[in-house]
Amino acid sequence: MGRNLKITLAYDGSEFHGWQVQPGLRTVQGTLAECLKRITGEDVLPQGSGRTDAGVHALGQVASVFVESPIPESNFVIALNDVLPPSIRVSSVRAVRDGFHARHSAKAKTYRYRIYRGDICPPFLARYVYHEPYPMNEEALMRSSESVVGIHDFTAFAASDPDRNARLAAAAEEENASRVGRLSNVRTIHSSQWMRTEEELIYTVRGDGFLHHMVRNLVGTFLLVGKGSLKISDVPTILEARDRSAAGPTAAACGLYLVSVEY
Amino acid sequence: MGRNLKITLAYDGSEFHGWQVQPGLRTVQGTLAECLKRITGEDVLPQGSGRTDAGVHALGQVASVFVESPIPESNFVIALNDVLPPSIRVSSVRAVRDGFHARHSAKAKTYRYRIYRGDICPPFLARYVYHEPYPMNEEALMRSSESVVGIHDFTAFAASDPDRNARLAAAAEEENASRVGRLSNVRTIHSSQWMRTEEELIYTVRGDGFLHHMVRNLVGTFLLVGKGSLKISDVPTILEARDRSAAGPTAAACGLYLVSVEY
Repeated sequence: MGRNLKITLAYDGSEFHGWQVQPGLRTVQGTLAECLKRITGEDVLPQGSGRTDAGVHALGQVASVFVESPIPESNFVIALNDVLPPSIRVSSVRAVRDGFHARHSAKAKTYRYRIYRGDICPPFLARYVYHEPYPMNEEALMRSSESVVGIHDFTAFAASDPDRNARLAAAAEEENASRVGRLSNVRTIHSSQWMRTEEELIYTVRGDGFLHHMVRNLVGTFLLVGKGSLKISDVPTILEARDRSAAGPTAAACGLYLVSVEY
Repeated sequence: MGRNLKITLAYDGSEFHGWQVQPGLRTVQGTLAECLKRITGEDVLPQGSGRTDAGVHALGQVASVFVESPIPESNFVIALNDVLPPSIRVSSVRAVRDGFHARHSAKAKTYRYRIYRGDICPPFLARYVYHEPYPMNEEALMRSSESVVGIHDFTAFAASDPDRNARLAAAAEEENASRVGRLSNVRTIHSSQWMRTEEELIYTVRGDGFLHHMVRNLVGTFLLVGKGSLKISDVPTILEARDRSAAGPTAAACGLYLVSVEY
């Protein structure tokens, strides 16, 4: 028979070379696969809702995996946390319909980015925030995030992909609408907001999907507004021009968290 | 001329083999010495208020060091944080009288121990708390810490030292009162108290000095009271009997913080 399992997990990204399995490197997906094998004896590769890069954290990453093992779901949580390193914690395991796929079935995702503003970053936060202690127009930074809400082509904030145009053309020639759709850089952002705590600036963004490096490139651009190198009104201009070179640099991985995935 | 400097620093103990310099190992003292050398060119060994073991953290460790360099104190903070790893942060550098010594001049110290009580310990806390999710009589644990307040011989809670009696006898034979005093296991505890937050049990203890492993051995004993293996009234009995073997095991290093040192 077997069951399709939906696994929700948190991890400290500073201990891994990202989500995706890579030969000879310690990754979250690879570690989870090894631990599933230790429990079930099965060779499986859990599919994540998306890759996270090296250093990027997760509070609520979701993975799906089909297993033959009859172990009850609640025991899976205990067994997995028993064999996983403390830097990965599984919060729930649920049996779901066979058609469920952590990436393809995802309807929305929420990311968070933490910037520590104090002069001296506590050693206990060094892996978990981006430290930016220099003077900044925080009000401008906070307002600069508003214009990305809505349906936009986010090419300006995507990691550059030199092969993308060739792949798009090939898909169009094949009249493969689904592949063209997947290659599109159009995404819907439902909310995009900064908040200030005593010591931190925290950005939270929720949308139907995110391009590679998109949240970090947005934050890098908002930071340029905070520093006065860009104006608030430059953000929608860069977005409309789909001009990656006009946007800011990719902000450091350590500040980024995948908060949750909705289905 | 030169100056005696008092350096206050925090560190993430999980990244170091303890405070004390050891050949071939990454220690806090060794790293601080290397960074002082990079800034001043001087070969110096900063003296800590006390050693912390591998995995033990510090919020306010204090070190003293005599330097010839004329660099102003406030610049020392910036220069040190520039060359130190993010897992060590210097919060202040002050010139003090030549006779000041971080260990010998210390009047009181405060330590904290954090126990995470939730079922699943977040991966971001794994290095910074001791995870104890099992059922426990928390009220008994909390009350068990009261009897250690006051002046006591803490031999029952000291790391066992097989050579200690021989060293004491030798010092007494020499009529070396200062050495006998230093070898005494009598300490004054000013306060010893547990508090409960939403997810944690936090122990804070302040005293004029602490023996090696003393806080961790106290916590290990209080935990036995919480688990019902010892009664609250057993704690003063073990203390009076100076019986290390009747006390609890040494609690894990990762939960312990040196909070501050008073002079």
